[in-house]
Amino acid sequence: MRTYLDCVPCFVRQAIDSARRVTNEPRVHEQLLRETLSVASRLTFDDSPPAMGQIIHRRLRELIGQKDPYRLAKQEANATALQLYPELKQKVARSDDPFTTAVKLAIAGNVIDLGVKSHLTQAEIHTAIEEALESDLEVDAVDALRQAIEAANDILYLADNAGEIVLDRILIEQMPLAKVTLVVKASPIINDATREDAEAAGLANLVPVIDNGTDIPGTILDQCCPAFQERFAQADLIIAKGQGNYETLNESRRPIFFLLKAKCPVIAQDLGCQLGQMVIRRGTA
Amino acid sequence: MRTYLDCVPCFVRQAIDSARRVTNEPRVHEQLLRETLSVASRLTFDDSPPAMGQIIHRRLRELIGQKDPYRLAKQEANATALQLYPELKQKVARSDDPFTTAVKLAIAGNVIDLGVKSHLTQAEIHTAIEEALESDLEVDAVDALRQAIEAANDILYLADNAGEIVLDRILIEQMPLAKVTLVVKASPIINDATREDAEAAGLANLVPVIDNGTDIPGTILDQCCPAFQERFAQADLIIAKGQGNYETLNESRRPIFFLLKAKCPVIAQDLGCQLGQMVIRRGTA
Repeated sequence: MRTYLDCVPCFVRQAIDSARRVTNEPRVHEQLLRETLSVASRLTFDDSPPAMGQIIHRRLRELIGQKDPYRLAKQEANATALQLYPELKQKVARSDDPFTTAVKLAIAGNVIDLGVKSHLTQAEIHTAIEEALESDLEVDAVDALRQAIEAANDILYLADNAGEIVLDRILIEQMPLAKVTLVVKASPIINDATREDAEAAGLANLVPVIDNGTDIPGTILDQCCPAFQERFAQADLIIAKGQGNYETLNESRRPIFFLLKAKCPVIAQDLGCQLGQMVIRRGTA
Repeated sequence: MRTYLDCVPCFVRQAIDSARRVTNEPRVHEQLLRETLSVASRLTFDDSPPAMGQIIHRRLRELIGQKDPYRLAKQEANATALQLYPELKQKVARSDDPFTTAVKLAIAGNVIDLGVKSHLTQAEIHTAIEEALESDLEVDAVDALRQAIEAANDILYLADNAGEIVLDRILIEQMPLAKVTLVVKASPIINDATREDAEAAGLANLVPVIDNGTDIPGTILDQCCPAFQERFAQADLIIAKGQGNYETLNESRRPIFFLLKAKCPVIAQDLGCQLGQMVIRRGTA
């Protein structure tokens, strides 16, 4: 997906919010804002929005001299989600259709966006999950995903955020584990899941974990490492979580299913869905 | 009031919105956005927000080759407000406290912001006015304004927007007309009232109308013409409508009353009031 004009004020707002989240230094807030504006004024709109996210957050990490400013938030999100894990596993096991319930929970993980609000309480997460479970998913899309998983031999599961990855585990556990490889980011970018989060979520013991070689909040293929590019080209099913992966892969010709909540108006318009809707969307392959 | 970091994403969004409002040319939308970002990256935060509004809208008028792109919207806003005028005059005449009712209506004019939504229906305006009339104003502030008007000999009334200026007329008609001079912008800026709007509202026949010499959506004194600067320095009461006038004059030592609705979180925080609140605020004189 290209960058829309309406993404730009949001980049600017995110730069301020992110700087404030990780430092109390007004000098840094202002400097990141000014540099974001300057870069944005020369923006290539053909690039997808996560390209800008990478630039902003790389610069923010440089300015504050920290490699992983969201580390604590990610650890807390994982811990909170792990406390819910036993109860959610029971919900799945007891439901009429465990696969559909697990899909809803995986999308709910994207709904609650543990990184954006790093001190989300368990009660708030509960509410988000209950709402997700009561929401309707497109039955045809769920069935298509189910059949694609059955037919596939080599499934790449592209994770999105820390915390959310614990709910991804619940969905992955409904899949034939021998077919699945989990993909995380190679190095910290916002609260995106890295290998450390896959290990914290207990996924590293279940399935192989690889990284895509980047620090981009999405999957920009030509910046990914050759090993990931090869796996991406060979996989017969790709499950991609979250907005960032949709924004960067929606024009791919590979067999992809996108699982996400449409959290911004630009994405909702691009998807042709309501703002806030839970979405399973098959790629254009 | 200085420009806060949080004003910047709003400038960027307003540049896109304004460009779209006045032209369907995507090339112009993108160019105004890029130029706004570039100017904002070098912003002097000590300047008040309307300084940036002037820059953005001057450039927009240049890009589209129109001196007054909001002219039709302003005419429509005036016409709509004038249709309501007889009924509102009756409301004032029949109320227990005509002055307070007139103050509420004048602030309601700022609430409904006819320029932002240029095709506001009469029904929508009715609702906004009813809400304003039911709202409470600080009684002490209204009384202080009433007494200041009685005591003053030379009152400058700084108008804000077209449409709104018809409701200003209702308040001005509650004041000793011989004391009042109305101030408008010298040339078009967004939907701010100019002499043409003062005439359309029927105010030019009631009180002297002068302009401040600028095309700024507020009152930046050192850019105003000498004649206005002199009047501003001599007046013994200034009534300033709207956010733009508050943003540019809130640190003035002259005897000012600000009448506005706090429509943005930054202003509400600066005023120490709720977002959306109707405010009468005495200046620091």
